[in-house]
Amino acid sequence: MNNSVVPSWVLTLVCADRVGIVAAVSQFLAERGGFITDSQQYADREAGRFFMRVAFEATDARMSDTQELQAAFAATGAEFDMDWRISGAQEKPRMLLAVSKGSHCLADLLHRWQTGTLAVDIMGVVSNHPDMRRITEWHGIPYHELPANGDKAGQEAAILDVFGRTRSDYLILARYMQVLSEDLVGRLEGRCVNIHHSFLPGFKGARPYHRAHERGVKLIGATAHFVTADLDEGPIIEQAVERVDHRATAEDMIRIGRDIEAQVLARAVGWIADRRVLLNGSKTVVFR
Amino acid sequence: MNNSVVPSWVLTLVCADRVGIVAAVSQFLAERGGFITDSQQYADREAGRFFMRVAFEATDARMSDTQELQAAFAATGAEFDMDWRISGAQEKPRMLLAVSKGSHCLADLLHRWQTGTLAVDIMGVVSNHPDMRRITEWHGIPYHELPANGDKAGQEAAILDVFGRTRSDYLILARYMQVLSEDLVGRLEGRCVNIHHSFLPGFKGARPYHRAHERGVKLIGATAHFVTADLDEGPIIEQAVERVDHRATAEDMIRIGRDIEAQVLARAVGWIADRRVLLNGSKTVVFR
Amino acid sequence: MNNSVVPSWVLTLVCADRVGIVAAVSQFLAERGGFITDSQQYADREAGRFFMRVAFEATDARMSDTQELQAAFAATGAEFDMDWRISGAQEKPRMLLAVSKGSHCLADLLHRWQTGTLAVDIMGVVSNHPDMRRITEWHGIPYHELPANGDKAGQEAAILDVFGRTRSDYLILARYMQVLSEDLVGRLEGRCVNIHHSFLPGFKGARPYHRAHERGVKLIGATAHFVTADLDEGPIIEQAVERVDHRATAEDMIRIGRDIEAQVLARAVGWIADRRVLLNGSKTVVFR
Amino acid sequence: MNNSVVPSWVLTLVCADRVGIVAAVSQFLAERGGFITDSQQYADREAGRFFMRVAFEATDARMSDTQELQAAFAATGAEFDMDWRISGAQEKPRMLLAVSKGSHCLADLLHRWQTGTLAVDIMGVVSNHPDMRRITEWHGIPYHELPANGDKAGQEAAILDVFGRTRSDYLILARYMQVLSEDLVGRLEGRCVNIHHSFLPGFKGARPYHRAHERGVKLIGATAHFVTADLDEGPIIEQAVERVDHRATAEDMIRIGRDIEAQVLARAVGWIADRRVLLNGSKTVVFR
Repeated sequence: MNNSVVPSWVLTLVCADRVGIVAAVSQFLAERGGFITDSQQYADREAGRFFMRVAFEATDARMSDTQELQAAFAATGAEFDMDWRISGAQEKPRMLLAVSKGSHCLADLLHRWQTGTLAVDIMGVVSNHPDMRRITEWHGIPYHELPANGDKAGQEAAILDVFGRTRSDYLILARYMQVLSEDLVGRLEGRCVNIHHSFLPGFKGARPYHRAHERGVKLIGATAHFVTADLDEGPIIEQAVERVDHRATAEDMIRIGRDIEAQVLARAVGWIADRRVLLNGSKTVVFR
Repeated sequence: MNNSVVPSWVLTLVCADRVGIVAAVSQFLAERGGFITDSQQYADREAGRFFMRVAFEATDARMSDTQELQAAFAATGAEFDMDWRISGAQEKPRMLLAVSKGSHCLADLLHRWQTGTLAVDIMGVVSNHPDMRRITEWHGIPYHELPANGDKAGQEAAILDVFGRTRSDYLILARYMQVLSEDLVGRLEGRCVNIHHSFLPGFKGARPYHRAHERGVKLIGATAHFVTADLDEGPIIEQAVERVDHRATAEDMIRIGRDIEAQVLARAVGWIADRRVLLNGSKTVVFR
Repeated sequence: MNNSVVPSWVLTLVCADRVGIVAAVSQFLAERGGFITDSQQYADREAGRFFMRVAFEATDARMSDTQELQAAFAATGAEFDMDWRISGAQEKPRMLLAVSKGSHCLADLLHRWQTGTLAVDIMGVVSNHPDMRRITEWHGIPYHELPANGDKAGQEAAILDVFGRTRSDYLILARYMQVLSEDLVGRLEGRCVNIHHSFLPGFKGARPYHRAHERGVKLIGATAHFVTADLDEGPIIEQAVERVDHRATAEDMIRIGRDIEAQVLARAVGWIADRRVLLNGSKTVVFR
Repeated sequence: MNNSVVPSWVLTLVCADRVGIVAAVSQFLAERGGFITDSQQYADREAGRFFMRVAFEATDARMSDTQELQAAFAATGAEFDMDWRISGAQEKPRMLLAVSKGSHCLADLLHRWQTGTLAVDIMGVVSNHPDMRRITEWHGIPYHELPANGDKAGQEAAILDVFGRTRSDYLILARYMQVLSEDLVGRLEGRCVNIHHSFLPGFKGARPYHRAHERGVKLIGATAHFVTADLDEGPIIEQAVERVDHRATAEDMIRIGRDIEAQVLARAVGWIADRRVLLNGSKTVVFR
């Protein structure tokens, strides 16, 4: 919630862990008058990898231009063999949403976007059904109806085409009930997020609420995760649960689950927008 | 938390659902001056079964003796083909605890029992290790060290012997790290409760926290369930979770999990003591 | 979630507690072939009052008409001096919503209503501001802009006029930032619900998130309650909290709080719609 | 959970915020081969204050002695006018516990200490009652029975005497039901922690569960906070809540609350032991 006009940026980096990384980064910023407003780091001791997110702002005219900053940081990045990124704190990632018929996640994301509480640009909505056209267009967002019609390859090519033309950064599956092909998943690696309607790894696959009901669980949940070729096994970004009891039917669980799904997906998308989510193999680092 | 000396009882019943059950039960009580202090019921529409728990107390001398009440209710029970039970509200179920080396669940149950917040009688502790003898005996509870020593059948026979001699009603596995034989499980059907250190059905089997860590989950949990021959698939009584993040090691998860395990098991045991838990096939009805 | 065409009803009642109430009610239903699908009761021992909610359906032609049922039950109601009500399970309460400028609760209620997950009729939206007209009318709901303009009495009369003309049952203050007069509160006793943006009784009054921030709390919350003349002291229907830490600014708390407020209010309205909420003096009984 | 024999330390610091602090600290560590295993920081923009906690370990022989490290860091500390502290990661703070009659918090802390999950040294237990002597001494901890007997000043002097003689760092009020004098509070500023049995600022003062019951709240909670002269207004360290409903009596709330109190206090004490808690005026910074 920074309304200031002071130029500010976010630096994220991943590299092999060793002595001196934080010193190098903070020295770089201090020399240019960079004032650190937030900094988080994590060292994965098993993997020997180091993750960092630094939010900083300019204290004087030495810092003002993102490209200059990037050019200046390149030497430090190379020295530590970092996978790094500097972007303006006000820059918004471009999100393409995908939905089938269920409105709860889509409506929630659109409302947060419209009221300025989700700092992303929504580039469009793709769907295999016509149902969500009206609410999408009411928000002034283009709706691309791309039915599967037995030609999965063609439909996915059309989705990729919208993704490319709109220069989207992420594809958000907001209750999109089609399994993506391995090819599409591969092309969108680390850039495609799904909301699964169970507390993974419990109830992977179809009809999770019905299976949760049959199993008699006392809590149901939802999981936002990156999509990988291994279905429902992608890196988990966020999870939450809600209590149910023996009286809850499968339909009650579906209804209760909608609130969890919408909130969990909105949190995941918001954290990605803030560049708080970094991939760590089959896991994520989430700097909350 | 009823300290009154007014005689009071709990009636639990399960039967095929049909019109007139509640009328018959409440009529039975009203005719004898029974004052209902709590009543809960549940109709499983899919299974066509009806579950009820009624707590009631005497308003006059017509009700005073449990055996008389049971004899009088038998006709109603037979009319509706009920599986029913009437017991004095102050009657405590007799619990035999089993533990291996981990103290957290055992210490928690013993402390609650000692301070009068868990209304059970603890008949003894059986263990395949000597470690928990000191804390058990300090509470004045007999400790039966029954090492496995390669003779599983003999060891289980010894457990059953303690169970029988102490006239225990339930065997509570308070972090007992041995898989029970199908035979023992069969003999204790509906009377043996386990605490599993994961949020079932996720991470069934061994080393759940290590697997949760590898999977990168954002919440870890514990599950109290009845033990059945199908390992980790028994009817769930209670579950709870706690949030973790990427920094939690498997050891951190084990440590955080201990609190969840102890609380979840204590709740399950307390509800059983209050006769709030009824079996419904592979699920439970828990009248909280 | 009952899609059946079997006629079904909900009976709620409050009366002085004594032996025989449940017997009389269940006998009444059993004689007419009424099949109890859900029943909950609560005896407030201190107040000596008994509360009950029974959902039931017809098994044959003896039951079909709500007015006949009501007429038949009148004798039982009188015998026990009950405050009772029988209504068709499909009957929806008529809700008038009030809002100022904040959209999150209103948008949430409208979306739930539109998708059929909130079983109420929304009769209109009244507001002291124009901001929420567009989203309201997009949902096909009449919007009544009634600015205060220094004439509070006149404005409240206009609200009451809309309430009366639309034959509304409840006025739901979905982030309506005006204090209602004692007169209006009196006229809507037990029929006006507010969402307060704190975990009452903490931070009663204005700017609760700012005060929570100053106090350094580690959890923030929201409270749905009936409105009484005693500001922020009305009977609580539902509360929930979310964790925050030292990094959360007052603005962050406001943003996080929006989700809690929307969910807590939606739950309260849904439970009222299901006739699960009964008043008990300065408290509520909520049969979940 | 670091079992390594590699020397490791925790540095905590508070100072006025300005450019270059992180650079100076990380440069200091990098020059000596200090490997940062965890680092968290927080800039309070309103107060213009900067808080940092860095855990680090030696990679070679340059770092090995705590006193040398402290001497070397003094210049950096002075340059930025820091309130700083370096201590060995294995150093345990010395805790004196105070209790009256309620055992749940004391028993919980003792069990965690005994099983090695709470990294503190417990120097003794002081009490105004004899009740907790047996459990304390069973754990091998000295018990100081110091009844008030109308001489509050004398009793508090005796407490301070134990605190001094045992060279305790903190006094933990584990359900100690006496109000401390302003003088004692002043002497133990920032070193005395209390567990309050409500979700502050709701229900400050006596009998909070009874008042929560009267108010009809739907969640009850507990708060661990530093003790200040302003009763129940000290900086909050941790809070948690549990759901209750209309059926919960005040006694039920007391019983449910015990679990919350024990867990919240244990978390606060554990975080203090890990030097994760820093004071920030009337608030705390908790680096979890």
